[in-house]
Parts: sequence; C-alpha cells; structure tokens
Amino acid sequence: MGRWEPNARARLERAALELYTERGFDQTTVADIAERAGLTKRTFFRYFADKREVLFWGQGALQDAYIGAVADAPADATPMQLISCALAAAGAVVEERHELARQRQAVIAANPQLQERELLKRATLATALADALRERGVADPAASLAAETAIAVFKVAFARWIEASDDQRFSELIHESLGQLRSVAADA
Amino acid sequence: MGRWEPNARARLERAALELYTERGFDQTTVADIAERAGLTKRTFFRYFADKREVLFWGQGALQDAYIGAVADAPADATPMQLISCALAAAGAVVEERHELARQRQAVIAANPQLQERELLKRATLATALADALRERGVADPAASLAAETAIAVFKVAFARWIEASDDQRFSELIHESLGQLRSVAADA
Repeated sequence: MGRWEPNARARLERAALELYTERGFDQTTVADIAERAGLTKRTFFRYFADKREVLFWGQGALQDAYIGAVADAPADATPMQLISCALAAAGAVVEERHELARQRQAVIAANPQLQERELLKRATLATALADALRERGVADPAASLAAETAIAVFKVAFARWIEASDDQRFSELIHESLGQLRSVAADA
Repeated sequence: MGRWEPNARARLERAALELYTERGFDQTTVADIAERAGLTKRTFFRYFADKREVLFWGQGALQDAYIGAVADAPADATPMQLISCALAAAGAVVEERHELARQRQAVIAANPQLQERELLKRATLATALADALRERGVADPAASLAAETAIAVFKVAFARWIEASDDQRFSELIHESLGQLRSVAADA
C-alpha cells in the first residue's frame, strides 16, 4: 500500500479525532488511526511525525495566514488594520472546519500536556506576528501589544465559535470581538 | 533545625535562583538549595512542594492581587478601569523584585518545560480574571476579552521591565502599555 491515497491527510485527521474522542488521546495508537482510516502506518508517517502532530499541524497554516496577511496589507494600514487583516486570514483557515475544531478542542481540554502544547504554539504565534508587524514598521511596544491582542481576540472568538451553532460564521465572531476590543479599550 | 528560621522563604528563593542561574534548573537539587540558604531540606519542604514551585509560588500572590483589585474597584468602574486597577495591583506585587524577576525569567527562558508551566499559569490567571470581571457585571465576551488583554498588557510591560535599568518603575510601563493599547485599538 505504498501507492498514492486520495485525501489521506484529511482521512487520517478525521480518524484520529474520532478515536481521541471515543477512547482518549493516550489510549489511541498510530496503528489504530491508520486502521480506522483504511491506510497504513507508513502512510500516516508520511503526513505526521506522531499522533500529537495530527492536532497541531494546522497551527503552521494558521501562522502562515497571519504573517502573509500582514505582509500583503495596504501600505497605509494602521496596526489595528494589520491585525484585522491577519485575523480575517487566520479565520478563513479554520472557517470550514467547525466540527473538526470542536472535536479537537474537546480532546485538548481533556489532556493537560496537550493544553501546554497548545499554549506554547499560541505564544510562538504571537511572537511571529509581532515580528511581522515590526517588519511593517510598527514600533515596539505597539507591535508586541497588537500581536498579543490579536491572539487574545482570536482565542475569545474561537471559544465562542466552538460553542455556537453550525451556521455561525467564525469571521463574524472575529469581527464582533474586534469591535468589542475597541469599545473596551476606549472606555477608560 | 526544626526551629523557626527568620525569612526562610526569601532565603530559599534567593538561593534557588542563584543556583538555577549558575548550574541550570535541572542540575540543581533541593539539597543544594537548602545548603546554599543555610537551611535544611525539611525547612525547604515547609515552604515549597518542589524545586519548580520556587519559581511559581508568586503566581498565587499575583492572582490574588488581580482578583482583589477587581472586587474592590469603584462601583461605576468600566471594564477598562477594572483591568487598570487589576494591573496596578499586580504590578505592585512584583515592583520590588526587579532583580529576582530578571533571574527567574532567564531560568524559565532556558527550559521549555518551565516555559510551558509559565504559559499554563498565565492562562489560568486569564480565566480567573475573566471570572472576577463577570462577577462585577461585565458581560461576555467583553469579560474574556478584557481579561486576555490585561494579561497581554502585563506580559508586554513585564518583558520591557526585565530589559530596563534598575530605576525603571514597572507601574510606569504598565501605564504606558495601557495607553498604547488604547491608541492601537482606537486606530482602526
């Protein structure tokens, strides 16, 4: 079964999330995941370094979206407009994965080590975003502050989205949270 | 040596930070710390559960400061004023510990497991602060957003303070960062 398998990454990811949900993360092996997906362990390792990576590979795509959007934003964009663009791009990455995002979040919430990993990834993301803002000429500490705030907005909007009905658009919640941030920060 | 030792906690903490800095966290034992402080292991364990706890016991005091300040703020305080009060109180907790804070940060930066622990503590703090804001009648998602933003402001100001000269007041950097947040958020 060394041959090309259509949509193998998505099948493995779905199988893994199902098993983590049914049995727990620690009780699931790579062999279980491959079997459930109808693929081999060898195919699994072509896509993921280990079973934890199934939960975190998307963070790379998220980071690329943030950074790319900041780099591509209009030349006269303010820091807040830069983070709005970044959040819109990051939102688009997860928008079509509502059910997977829910499953993933429940698996992570049940496992302290996965939570720590998630927090570390989020901190890395904030650092990368601050770097991207600096490259766009945003001075410090505004760059760090805007980046940390963007990650906070994403986190809050994401937590609401996970709880929301299937037809709730993530992009709307991002937009609302940004508005809320503006009014909270102005109201001193 | 079961007798009362004056200022034992502070002596143990200073000794631990010295040793973590000199030898690294993993290479230091509780026996080393007790010896350097001129105390017994038994005395160490009266104050700290383990050598990691020396680095994190202050988080409890920090959390109490945040929560207490929110509870005690004026009845008509806006969410932003509530977090300003919380940040001022949290700042006061660390203000006199500039050199210890620097040492601690360097030790944590050198050890991924300690970093993950730090991030987990920070996330717990954000959750506790959001709860305190909700108890003061701040609705969601403003409560979560304000709490996350406060933690971000603290983090950014703290990173600047660690780098700053000895006479830099932390409270000033908190104040500046809050102003910066306001102008970043308004500038959309």
